[in-house]
Amino acid sequence: MLYLIGLGLGDATDITVKGLRALRNCSRVYLEAYTSMLTVGKEALEEYYGKELILADRDLVEQEADEILKDANETDVAFLVVGDPFGATTHSDLVLRAVHAGISYQVIHNASIMNAIGCCGLQLYNFGETVSVVFWTDTWRPESFYDKICKNRSAGLHTLCLLDLKVKEQSVENMMRGKKIYEPPRFMSVSQAADQLVQIVERRREQGEELGVTEDTVCVGVARLGADDQKICTATLAQLVSCDLGAPLHSLIVPGKLHPLEVDMLRLHAQPDALRYLAMVDSS
Amino acid sequence: MLYLIGLGLGDATDITVKGLRALRNCSRVYLEAYTSMLTVGKEALEEYYGKELILADRDLVEQEADEILKDANETDVAFLVVGDPFGATTHSDLVLRAVHAGISYQVIHNASIMNAIGCCGLQLYNFGETVSVVFWTDTWRPESFYDKICKNRSAGLHTLCLLDLKVKEQSVENMMRGKKIYEPPRFMSVSQAADQLVQIVERRREQGEELGVTEDTVCVGVARLGADDQKICTATLAQLVSCDLGAPLHSLIVPGKLHPLEVDMLRLHAQPDALRYLAMVDSS
Repeated sequence: MLYLIGLGLGDATDITVKGLRALRNCSRVYLEAYTSMLTVGKEALEEYYGKELILADRDLVEQEADEILKDANETDVAFLVVGDPFGATTHSDLVLRAVHAGISYQVIHNASIMNAIGCCGLQLYNFGETVSVVFWTDTWRPESFYDKICKNRSAGLHTLCLLDLKVKEQSVENMMRGKKIYEPPRFMSVSQAADQLVQIVERRREQGEELGVTEDTVCVGVARLGADDQKICTATLAQLVSCDLGAPLHSLIVPGKLHPLEVDMLRLHAQPDALRYLAMVDSS
Repeated sequence: MLYLIGLGLGDATDITVKGLRALRNCSRVYLEAYTSMLTVGKEALEEYYGKELILADRDLVEQEADEILKDANETDVAFLVVGDPFGATTHSDLVLRAVHAGISYQVIHNASIMNAIGCCGLQLYNFGETVSVVFWTDTWRPESFYDKICKNRSAGLHTLCLLDLKVKEQSVENMMRGKKIYEPPRFMSVSQAADQLVQIVERRREQGEELGVTEDTVCVGVARLGADDQKICTATLAQLVSCDLGAPLHSLIVPGKLHPLEVDMLRLHAQPDALRYLAMVDSS
C-alpha cells in the first residue's frame, strides 16, 4: 500500500492520528521537500514520528518514482506531503504510476493553505481561481497573475496568491553544464509579492490602463499559517511592500467584495491605514 | 483560551495530534453538529477522545454563544468543527465575540471538503467559485448555482458544489406556531443534485437558451470523502441521476477545462460512458 499522508501546516504535531499510525507501520517513509515546508525540519519530524525519513526532492519524485513505489504491493510505503497530498500536480503522477503498477493507495488528508487561509476571516466559498506569483528575473516578468486577480475581483471574488519558492534549483549555467550544484532555497515574502504587484500597477497606470487593483487596495499578508507564531497583516498593498512578516512561508490574499462579517474579521489584524480603507468598504 | 479545532473528514482518528492534546486539556468541549457530519457519531468521538462532548446546534452557536464562551478567559474551552473551523460563517461570529470579550483564541486546522476534494484528481488551483446546491421546495426552485457553474466552466474552471443538508430544522408550520419540533435530518445526494441540474438544463433548453452544462457533461460525484468507504464516481450528469453513492455526505464537481493528467485521474473512477466523453475531451 502507498500511503499519501498530509502533514498539515505548522509542526510535527499537526499530523492526524490516522496519518501517524499509518506512517509508523510503513517500511519506508518519504518526505516530499520541494513544494512546501513546515516550520520545523526533517530531524524534528523524525524524532517525533520515531521514523527515519527519506528526503524526496523533485528529481526523485518526477524521475525516479519507481524507487518510491518499489515493493509497495508487498510492503507499506508512506509519502509525506506538507499540507494535503493533492496540492501539487506531481503527486497525481505518483498515484497514477502506483495504480498502473497494481499498487493500492490511500490518501490521509490534512489542512493545506487552500483551506486554512479561511482563518483570516474571508469566506472560502467567495474565493475565485488561485494564482501563483512567481519570482521575476531580469528577462522574465510575467503579469498574468495580476489579470487573474482583477478578474476575480471584478466578479466580487477573493484571490489567494501562492508565493513562489525555489528549493534545490540549479542556475541556468549549472544546468547547461550538467553540474548538480544547487542554489540556496528562496521563498517569496509578502513584501516581495506586493512590490511586484505595485510595479505592475505603476507600469499599467503609465500606459493609461484601467486598474482593478492599486497601491491602495486592502490586502491580507499571511505568514507561517498554522504555526504558533503565525502572522496575519491586513494592510494596503503599498503598506505591505514595507511589511516584514518574518520567516517563510508567506501567502497574500487580495479580497474581492467584502461581507460586513468579513470586514470585522479583517479588522482584527489591520494596520491603521487599512482600517480607514476598510471603513470605506464597510459603509459603501 | 477558546480552541477552534478541526476534526477533518472521516472518523475520530482524523483529528490532529495537536488538536487531540488541546481538547483533552479543556474543561468544556463543544461539538458543532449542524454544518457537516463525520461518518461516526458523538458517542464514538467521546469514547476516542476520552471527553464528554456538548452538542452545539445552530441555536446555541448563533443565539447563545455567550454560554460557549463563559469563563473562557480563565479556563480552556474547545469548539470542535467537522472539517476545518472556518468553513461556515457562524464560526467567524464566535471568534469575534471571543475577541470582543477579551478571550484569546487559537485555531487548529484540518482537512475540509474545500481542499480534500483534490483527491479526485482535479487541481485545486483550477477551481472557481464554490457553489451551494439547495433543496428545492414546491415554491422555491433557485437556479443561480447553475449560472455560477457555467460561468466557472466558460473560464475553464472547475466547480465544487456543496450539497444542502438540513439538520434540526423546523417545518414552517412548527416554526410559526413556535413549536420546537424538528424535522428528521436530510442530506442531499449526488443523485438529487444531478437531478435538479438536469431539470434546469431541460427547462432552459425548452426556452432556447445556450447551455454551458448539459446531461452529457462529465461530472464527479464524491461520497464520504476521507472515510474508509469513500466513493468517487466520474459519470455524465444523466448517469449520476441514477447513481447511488450511499450514506452522506455527498459533493458534486463540475469540471472545467481538463489537463491530460486530470483526465487520467478522473479515469480511475469513471463509468464506461463517461470514459467515452473523457476520451473526447482528451483528444480535443
